[in-house]
Amino acid sequence: MAQQLRVDAIRAARSAGSGHPTSAMSAADLLAGLFDGHLRLDFDRPRAPHNDHFVLSKGHASPLLYAGYKAVGVINDEELMTFRSFGSRIEGHPTPLLPWVDVATGSLGQGLPIGVGLALAAKRLDRSTARVWVLCGDSEMTEGSVWEAFEHAAHERLDNLVALVDVNRLGQTGETMHGWGLSAYAARAQAFGWQALEIDGHDAGQIERALTRAGQASDRPVVILARTCKGKGVAEVEDQHGKHGKPLAEPDKAIDQLGGSRNLRFTPARPGAETGHQPARRTPVSLTRHEIGTETATRHAYGSALRELGTLRADVVALDGEVSNSTFAELFRDSHPDRYFEMYIAEQQLVASAVGMQARGWRPFASTFAAFLTRAYDFVRMAAISRANIRLMGSHAGVATGEDGPSQMGLEDIAAFRAIHGSTVLCPSDANQTAVLVEQLADSSGVCYLRTSRGSVPVLYDPAQEFPIGGSTVLRDGTDVTLVGAGVTLHEALSAAENLASEGLRARVIDLYSIKPVDTETIARAAVETGAIVTVEDHHPEGGVGDAVLEALASADTPVPVTKLAVRTMPGSGKAAELMRQARIDAHAIAEAAGQLVASKPG
Amino acid sequence: MAQQLRVDAIRAARSAGSGHPTSAMSAADLLAGLFDGHLRLDFDRPRAPHNDHFVLSKGHASPLLYAGYKAVGVINDEELMTFRSFGSRIEGHPTPLLPWVDVATGSLGQGLPIGVGLALAAKRLDRSTARVWVLCGDSEMTEGSVWEAFEHAAHERLDNLVALVDVNRLGQTGETMHGWGLSAYAARAQAFGWQALEIDGHDAGQIERALTRAGQASDRPVVILARTCKGKGVAEVEDQHGKHGKPLAEPDKAIDQLGGSRNLRFTPARPGAETGHQPARRTPVSLTRHEIGTETATRHAYGSALRELGTLRADVVALDGEVSNSTFAELFRDSHPDRYFEMYIAEQQLVASAVGMQARGWRPFASTFAAFLTRAYDFVRMAAISRANIRLMGSHAGVATGEDGPSQMGLEDIAAFRAIHGSTVLCPSDANQTAVLVEQLADSSGVCYLRTSRGSVPVLYDPAQEFPIGGSTVLRDGTDVTLVGAGVTLHEALSAAENLASEGLRARVIDLYSIKPVDTETIARAAVETGAIVTVEDHHPEGGVGDAVLEALASADTPVPVTKLAVRTMPGSGKAAELMRQARIDAHAIAEAAGQLVASKPG
Repeated sequence: MAQQLRVDAIRAARSAGSGHPTSAMSAADLLAGLFDGHLRLDFDRPRAPHNDHFVLSKGHASPLLYAGYKAVGVINDEELMTFRSFGSRIEGHPTPLLPWVDVATGSLGQGLPIGVGLALAAKRLDRSTARVWVLCGDSEMTEGSVWEAFEHAAHERLDNLVALVDVNRLGQTGETMHGWGLSAYAARAQAFGWQALEIDGHDAGQIERALTRAGQASDRPVVILARTCKGKGVAEVEDQHGKHGKPLAEPDKAIDQLGGSRNLRFTPARPGAETGHQPARRTPVSLTRHEIGTETATRHAYGSALRELGTLRADVVALDGEVSNSTFAELFRDSHPDRYFEMYIAEQQLVASAVGMQARGWRPFASTFAAFLTRAYDFVRMAAISRANIRLMGSHAGVATGEDGPSQMGLEDIAAFRAIHGSTVLCPSDANQTAVLVEQLADSSGVCYLRTSRGSVPVLYDPAQEFPIGGSTVLRDGTDVTLVGAGVTLHEALSAAENLASEGLRARVIDLYSIKPVDTETIARAAVETGAIVTVEDHHPEGGVGDAVLEALASADTPVPVTKLAVRTMPGSGKAAELMRQARIDAHAIAEAAGQLVASKPG
Repeated sequence: MAQQLRVDAIRAARSAGSGHPTSAMSAADLLAGLFDGHLRLDFDRPRAPHNDHFVLSKGHASPLLYAGYKAVGVINDEELMTFRSFGSRIEGHPTPLLPWVDVATGSLGQGLPIGVGLALAAKRLDRSTARVWVLCGDSEMTEGSVWEAFEHAAHERLDNLVALVDVNRLGQTGETMHGWGLSAYAARAQAFGWQALEIDGHDAGQIERALTRAGQASDRPVVILARTCKGKGVAEVEDQHGKHGKPLAEPDKAIDQLGGSRNLRFTPARPGAETGHQPARRTPVSLTRHEIGTETATRHAYGSALRELGTLRADVVALDGEVSNSTFAELFRDSHPDRYFEMYIAEQQLVASAVGMQARGWRPFASTFAAFLTRAYDFVRMAAISRANIRLMGSHAGVATGEDGPSQMGLEDIAAFRAIHGSTVLCPSDANQTAVLVEQLADSSGVCYLRTSRGSVPVLYDPAQEFPIGGSTVLRDGTDVTLVGAGVTLHEALSAAENLASEGLRARVIDLYSIKPVDTETIARAAVETGAIVTVEDHHPEGGVGDAVLEALASADTPVPVTKLAVRTMPGSGKAAELMRQARIDAHAIAEAAGQLVASKPG
């Protein structure tokens, strides 16, 4: 069977004219062993909760996975030969366009952290007997995210998680740090609390015994360290430098060496009967109502709303990166400890866990400081390719964070999240709006980001008001100029409008709580009716609120002058008000910019 | 002395009304021991090459560092009491506004990877006897980046690197995974190839012996694992939950318990005479000239130019994340092996090493796929706060990457890098332009990003042409519409202009190779003279070339309609041309959009 997988991987790469057959060939025996009796997956019902999961962390070995699917019988040879061609779901790296692929891979070091999320969901949420198998490359063991996963898996005693490491010694450009030194990996894994099994990755008997032992683990995760040869079985490429990521030069000869094409079939193991946990019923509960005029931080409103959402819906889970008393995720933790996950200071594992959990149907909300979500940006990017539905909350946005200084201030977060395909980016301006948005996020799709602030702000809205995603509110009408803010800057814009009124200028004020998708219609109308727009954001000038407004206006019929106020200097420490004044995003700066813009209007 | 540091930390936090005195108090004995005879730093000449480095990775313990500086005599008590106040350089977390701070900290898990960069530069580039001391918190040991650093430091045998871990057991919200389990950390560190010393972090004798041993290490890095108490010395807070990140409630009582204020002075150890390496002289060399009309990939031109720059200048170094045959950093490696650093697949360590090296005056160029630089986005963000001068090259930009699929395509990179304060973002369109830009980058400041593409493109420019950062070129004149592209899309824009010409439309074509800073003047003139602009980029629509153009136009007197073409769908695999057509960023889509825009022009 392993030879068949190798042959099919070579054939797929030949057909594509590109791909990574040698990386597939080293792991062929491992995959054959796993698919033959160990992976308990009902391919006809890929989302069934008692299914095992298989994550190909070394996503470039995709032809091996696809060859395996062919051997299972869920794709045919014709489809296999569409590998890497336009419109095919047999992509260069696996994505969930194939129903048996839970998450996209191809950015190395992500499979194991996501596997931790899957295993946590299976064990602690679904209480399922499902196991999670992750096939890693040896090159990716240098990614720190892999060690976040090792640490968390052992801490959580995930005995339903098995990592298989294909130690083929050769990376893309040369030998790995440890070559075939299995003991180097074993020592690290054991120190992190895992059971490590060292085997010959081309010996079917050793593979079978290791998989069996791994499947019987009872108190800790298991890593199978398999010594393999890249390009195994074909002299032209076996254990040769310079053979990474290219089709074989002489594929026919190679296929002959491997015994020619075959058409063997796996009979996949079936999952056992589901003995899992049934999520509790939903309990009706009302969101906390914040009285207009009182003051609450939006991060605090997030925590309250999430706690109530957790009561309302049994499928909501929360994760935090050891700052739950800052993000107020602790309110959820204290009410729903069985659905709260402490991810410690490991933001990549935080996001990866959310991605894994949503793949099993849960609705994760993950929180940390906005600034620190940048640590997981590659995981966010890949989550979009995974078609994952996750909700991320970033607190302590902008210079309004104050005395802690720039390292703690989210000043690039809107830009980063807006650029993610299919993302939603929200920045609420008061506590009631925050609560309404959090509630909607439970049913949202794609990567959703909610930005909150450290300091308290006045409650502006009635608790019953609706705030559709993609909408905005007009808090003050006016025809001379439009002021657009979100979050803390909305409050500054309201003050500025007040000041402008005393000078006889009527400013319209828009609360752009939904930065993506953006309310093009309201902005375009404001452009037509006021002829000048000032945007103001507690964020660097690129890619934020101002750019969202410019994007909305670019397609409008009547372009108008726009002044973008944003944080254009490197902040230091100080009081929020001092730093906002310095950055020229406070009421005074807004009123001044609006006055100048109106004065320069033609006619 | 440690008591004095505690008292001053408490006083600073009292003065500020915020801060992390308890995190300072646990590490006070460690810092006192280090500053008293082990840290060989000439505070009067903080950039001298034989100086040791001290990195406070647990940046929130900043009042301890500042109290230490006061005890050295380089800041006075008055300045210490400006802690966290507006305009003070005594910020909430340390930044290089203070000349003895090499790099900003405050995003946990970054100090040790940057320490690896400093130690690599000292040992392998400067051949200096300088040592690097990094004080870490125990909470940050869960960051994967810390383990990237452990792996790399051992692999490089950095016996000039010492990590001190302040194991005070308590994180922000609760106990760490391992509490006071020093052996858990020791096992991990030893498995990764470090020498581990376990001590009582409040015993001056044990500290002194451990620092002495660490300073004598000869073949591997050393980690000192110090068992400490958070809030040590003050009953109100010592080893108490819930005392993180806030001033003491009763500071006067605490100061009394600690024996009151003192004014002891450190006598810092002096660095030895410099026996370091003198960089070789510069050797004049010409950049490779690419003939107009030939085809070369910009990533290849990067590698060639970098190799030549390395010959021209002895202070240029290159690093790559195990993809140097894709980024063509291998050309530099083969010519200048002593100044090339293989960072394996560890992008956080890749960027951190560059940050550390530039702090010692070197000029690093670090490369990997554009998509994978997102892995290090938090390090890039912090590099800006560190006022670091680094150059990052991201290859395989956009859907033009082709068959490998979306996981390998940089589609958010321009947005991410533009949002970094003070950044430069370049996207060359041909080989000669690439070479000229690479050469300029050697003297650039801030975070500089160069985006290159996988496929070959025709050489457009004469090798002698200049391409100032902040400029653009007008490749084709016209008055009906302006087409703005960069990189692969510039070539599509040129084709589109050709097609439009056959329909009688004269399109101006601008090569926006400098996306930030952007050439506002040329864009504004094009707006006035052509009245319509189409931007086209191989990037998601948010935060990229189109937004840079909109930003430039926002401040212009004459707003014009802009059509932004960008990648609005999730790509799959396929040929570059197929994917560009699907994304509607090819010549056909550009011509169509331009035609529609012109047809809709008023008048």
